[in-house]
Amino acid sequence: MPRNLVVGAAQLGPIARAEPREAVVVRMIALLDKAAARGCGLVVFPELALTTFFPRWYMPDQAEVDTFFETEMPNAATLPLFERARALGIGFSFGFAEKLEIGGRIRRFNTAILVDGEGQIVHRYRKIHLPGHTENEPWRAFQHLEKRYFEPGEEVFSPVTALGGEIGLAICNDRRWPETYREHALRGTEMVLIGYNTPVHYPLAPEHDHLQCFHNHLSLQAGAYQNGLWVVGVAKAGKEENCDLIGQSCIVAPTGEIVAQASTLHDELVIHDCDFDRCTEIRANIFDFAKHRRPEMYPLLSAPIATRR
Amino acid sequence: MPRNLVVGAAQLGPIARAEPREAVVVRMIALLDKAAARGCGLVVFPELALTTFFPRWYMPDQAEVDTFFETEMPNAATLPLFERARALGIGFSFGFAEKLEIGGRIRRFNTAILVDGEGQIVHRYRKIHLPGHTENEPWRAFQHLEKRYFEPGEEVFSPVTALGGEIGLAICNDRRWPETYREHALRGTEMVLIGYNTPVHYPLAPEHDHLQCFHNHLSLQAGAYQNGLWVVGVAKAGKEENCDLIGQSCIVAPTGEIVAQASTLHDELVIHDCDFDRCTEIRANIFDFAKHRRPEMYPLLSAPIATRR
Repeated sequence: MPRNLVVGAAQLGPIARAEPREAVVVRMIALLDKAAARGCGLVVFPELALTTFFPRWYMPDQAEVDTFFETEMPNAATLPLFERARALGIGFSFGFAEKLEIGGRIRRFNTAILVDGEGQIVHRYRKIHLPGHTENEPWRAFQHLEKRYFEPGEEVFSPVTALGGEIGLAICNDRRWPETYREHALRGTEMVLIGYNTPVHYPLAPEHDHLQCFHNHLSLQAGAYQNGLWVVGVAKAGKEENCDLIGQSCIVAPTGEIVAQASTLHDELVIHDCDFDRCTEIRANIFDFAKHRRPEMYPLLSAPIATRR
Repeated sequence: MPRNLVVGAAQLGPIARAEPREAVVVRMIALLDKAAARGCGLVVFPELALTTFFPRWYMPDQAEVDTFFETEMPNAATLPLFERARALGIGFSFGFAEKLEIGGRIRRFNTAILVDGEGQIVHRYRKIHLPGHTENEPWRAFQHLEKRYFEPGEEVFSPVTALGGEIGLAICNDRRWPETYREHALRGTEMVLIGYNTPVHYPLAPEHDHLQCFHNHLSLQAGAYQNGLWVVGVAKAGKEENCDLIGQSCIVAPTGEIVAQASTLHDELVIHDCDFDRCTEIRANIFDFAKHRRPEMYPLLSAPIATRR
């Protein structure tokens, strides 16, 4: 029996700082409707999809920072998205800044969720690889304060059985790390959904700015091929509050081939009919982990940082 | 002070089964001389460089198999290569089938060595990721009996300080595994030399045959970028004993960019002036391992196979 899922990568163009969540949700619903018309069963939106990418600013007032966070999901602003998707019977995924109380302590994460066709949140992931820095660095054209505004996630990558396959989540900088895909694959993930906000300009090594799009696809494609899984990479793109973000949202087959790609920096939907069973072509052969991996030869990969070298 | 090394990727065209080692060494010396004329300090030859790729045949007679193995290095056939390189003051690397006695037991490995500019073997690596199978499978157009003819290496990836940098070795199928580059990088490797013999046709999944060259470069480029190191990938290429081997030997910068590439399937030299210090652009920033890796979140990477899933 075929195990196919038509997936839509729903790229978002820039979101202004003043743009209310409700306006963004209208845009997301427009993409959702388009996806439904094209037969999608799953629509993937970017990281921090509901607001502008606020870690680009240093805000000393935590109350101001908190205006970018969600304290419940769904909430009033996003409920229309949940309801439309449920009415259409379509699953979806998006990222948001999550604030919650755990054990009497307020905690903040860069989070992504997966919602099934019945409107249920069936998977939640909190970003493990937070990039950037913790202190204000005024020499930068813009900040990247994810390490200040979020705590790192504490749960390992894992898939959920949903929408006919084993689906996993990762967020932005996670996609550059081969560990992300491998941990997923070793737990059986067949498709990883990865939203991102990636500036063209990287203040620490601007000599590589022209390679941002290349590095994006290189990491997504290698992760797909070397683990025999589908990868759906979805950008927030375009000139957002004077910061240029890359686009090139794409769907990558388990062969590493890009099979759908956005060609604008605006709201744009690209789709592909993904067969979960194609993971087997890779994983039962060239990357048969049980047969060919040599974990005893990789002692440093899981080792604490201090033991290195 | 600049830390540059001009590297030559010395691709070899096919080697016939009947071609004696001495004839191959003449070809290797011709490439070495060309490299010297172009200012190279290091010349990299492929995996199993001295003979045809013999694991493509099932040979029930071990004595016949052993005709493809070297029991000492250098030996009479390869000494002219060692001597010429020493006279030129050039380092080199190549792979060969190694047979030796360890603790009273005969052992066979798929091995690569690095020789410095004084003719000394300064590093030796025995292939960890042996591909293929152990038994004769007559349905295949050709065999891939590396798992039969070799034992897997028992030492982890590590670099040696030589020729002005931290140089590591890997062989063929190793290059497809992200673990290879990561283990190297965590031990400080700045350049990985990787020879390969890769058939265009992969009997287990021939539907991917047209992707062989893409997968080769994808793995080499991702390994370089995601670890901020130089990669030198060198093929034995062309139609060898009726088996087509891919070429596209290349040198990959720590940015993941291919900076030199062969365009034939014959003996061919391509070179690049490699600056070891360029590794820092990547490793001190986007892939600052100490700052951004989360090894506690990768419990399965080093875990024995049995604990998975």
